[in-house]
Amino acid sequence: MKLSEIDTPAVLIDLDRVEANMQRFQAYADEHTLAVRPHIKTHKLPRFAKRQVELGAVGITCQKLGEAEVMADAGLTDIFLPYNIIGKAKLDRLVALNKRIKLAVTADSEVTIRGLAEAFKDTSKPLTVLVECDTGMGRCGVQTPDEAVALAGLINAAGGLIFAGFMTYPKTGAVAENQAFLSSAKEKATAAGLDPRIISNGGSPDMWRAHEVSSATEHRPGTYIYMDRFQVAKGVGTFDDCALTVLATVVSHPTENRAIIDAGSKALTSDTFGMEGFGCIVGYPDAVITSLSEEHGAIDLSACKDKPQIGDRLRIIPNHACVVSNLFDQVVLISGNEVVEVAPVAARGRVD
Amino acid sequence: MKLSEIDTPAVLIDLDRVEANMQRFQAYADEHTLAVRPHIKTHKLPRFAKRQVELGAVGITCQKLGEAEVMADAGLTDIFLPYNIIGKAKLDRLVALNKRIKLAVTADSEVTIRGLAEAFKDTSKPLTVLVECDTGMGRCGVQTPDEAVALAGLINAAGGLIFAGFMTYPKTGAVAENQAFLSSAKEKATAAGLDPRIISNGGSPDMWRAHEVSSATEHRPGTYIYMDRFQVAKGVGTFDDCALTVLATVVSHPTENRAIIDAGSKALTSDTFGMEGFGCIVGYPDAVITSLSEEHGAIDLSACKDKPQIGDRLRIIPNHACVVSNLFDQVVLISGNEVVEVAPVAARGRVD
Repeated sequence: MKLSEIDTPAVLIDLDRVEANMQRFQAYADEHTLAVRPHIKTHKLPRFAKRQVELGAVGITCQKLGEAEVMADAGLTDIFLPYNIIGKAKLDRLVALNKRIKLAVTADSEVTIRGLAEAFKDTSKPLTVLVECDTGMGRCGVQTPDEAVALAGLINAAGGLIFAGFMTYPKTGAVAENQAFLSSAKEKATAAGLDPRIISNGGSPDMWRAHEVSSATEHRPGTYIYMDRFQVAKGVGTFDDCALTVLATVVSHPTENRAIIDAGSKALTSDTFGMEGFGCIVGYPDAVITSLSEEHGAIDLSACKDKPQIGDRLRIIPNHACVVSNLFDQVVLISGNEVVEVAPVAARGRVD
Repeated sequence: MKLSEIDTPAVLIDLDRVEANMQRFQAYADEHTLAVRPHIKTHKLPRFAKRQVELGAVGITCQKLGEAEVMADAGLTDIFLPYNIIGKAKLDRLVALNKRIKLAVTADSEVTIRGLAEAFKDTSKPLTVLVECDTGMGRCGVQTPDEAVALAGLINAAGGLIFAGFMTYPKTGAVAENQAFLSSAKEKATAAGLDPRIISNGGSPDMWRAHEVSSATEHRPGTYIYMDRFQVAKGVGTFDDCALTVLATVVSHPTENRAIIDAGSKALTSDTFGMEGFGCIVGYPDAVITSLSEEHGAIDLSACKDKPQIGDRLRIIPNHACVVSNLFDQVVLISGNEVVEVAPVAARGRVD
């Protein structure tokens, strides 16, 4: 099947670039003796998760229990779920999942730890728990190394739980702050007789500086497998590394400098990450996707010498690849201009 | 089943509010002798589309061919698809769909009209086509009434096509400009011997002023069925009219004034429409949802007297209801605090 036979909008995944992106970071991590635990939220495809492990990843990371269940069903055996699992329904599922695979979660509060301990106290297999640390991102996580150690002690003392270390999703650019927090937590925990054997760091934007966080034992890059416009803006890769593109058709051209494509926020999402426009059009670097409705994208062609015409098909590198993966039931795997396979996005839409 | 048994995040749809919202606009339109043709992009549920027709709608509106196919499969018989349908794959599907139901589409270019004419020239049932007009929105549509009439003439002259009138999705607030464009196009078309029997106007933000666009014969409101934070900001309804809420759990509370919920951009979307924050939390009017990651929402509680705690379940009125419907495989239909049914979102993810 040729690419020209694929109707639009569609998500195209360039398999050669995927392979190169996976290999490049694995080689970097191997060089720095850093374990890789890729975040599958970006691709949501068991085949890529398996390939990441084949290439040397110690396991995978999922953001939701439902994603982890899909990956376990597909044969992945080592999953890290860096999330506070709260409430009986999810705790029951967590107990069931822990029986099937090597599993670890995070906690950043006594409430979460008490819930986990209650759920696992009578199970035959204890649950591995890391303490989530807010090293600058301002999302989840304890605020100080001392708090981290206090929770580590609680986990260690709880029946049914095993304390394994610390985890963070860091603020982009705050490499030194991240390292300072994690090394302090590690040192204090060790001094307290605890064993923080895993120090898990994450994120693609600073992934080439992962070795500077020298306390970390593993890194969890997600977007690195596809790259996107934001990662390129951050210098993580180039547009030629971007493996995910949205294929769209120009459906209207109301004025000389305005074209409308059949990809809107339902295909590209409204994520801007502070950038101008909603993606970069391959071959039209001066075109600006100025606004999105759900099913329309408006392009300003004022700065373009060559202007696409109605019926032309465009490939768009989105601002944020991960959210695009979640919008499509299937993606088109390609090699060059050949369609290799149309694959269902197995872990799409797993909200809980 | 009780609401307390529903795991989070989940989309809740209040059936009583849905019914009231549908009835309220239908009554308004009846009073002004304006046909209602609701846009199903907001709910994507055949049951609500059928109810809209039962209450008096002349038919429904879909934005994508795939949505129209789902609705036709479910028994809807009169569908307007205000989109330029381009390319052989979609034109073949359009011919097939036109055989099954009363169908109309739009065109805003010669290219689109030539494609439609070619596809329908040898079919037994002609296709109804309206000309899309850009009356101020700056998206699709011809730029002047004269252009509109010129395309109307092309449609009228083409074998296999029937010209039926003009359609617009107007700029919010530009009611007078919209009316001026449409009345001019109608007058000029009539003077040219054409019959613009349908003048189709759309949008929820100005729906209570729909009668001011006196040339219009029908209105296509979408969001009105659920309402959302943006519609409330525009004065279309109140928070008590909002039928769609996202149910989320507080999973982390790292600082006194920061809470994290298990609903991020995968549940609420990044749409802001220029407003501060990513939704309104029922019962916590002073809380601000300051940022979203895919699976985390960060809430600033600085201005709140009562602050939600870990494990608390919150209901959030999103900025934009339509995009939320597209993110969930199922929605929970409720009446008060009782769960009536968990329903699949049949037309979710129909991207083409």
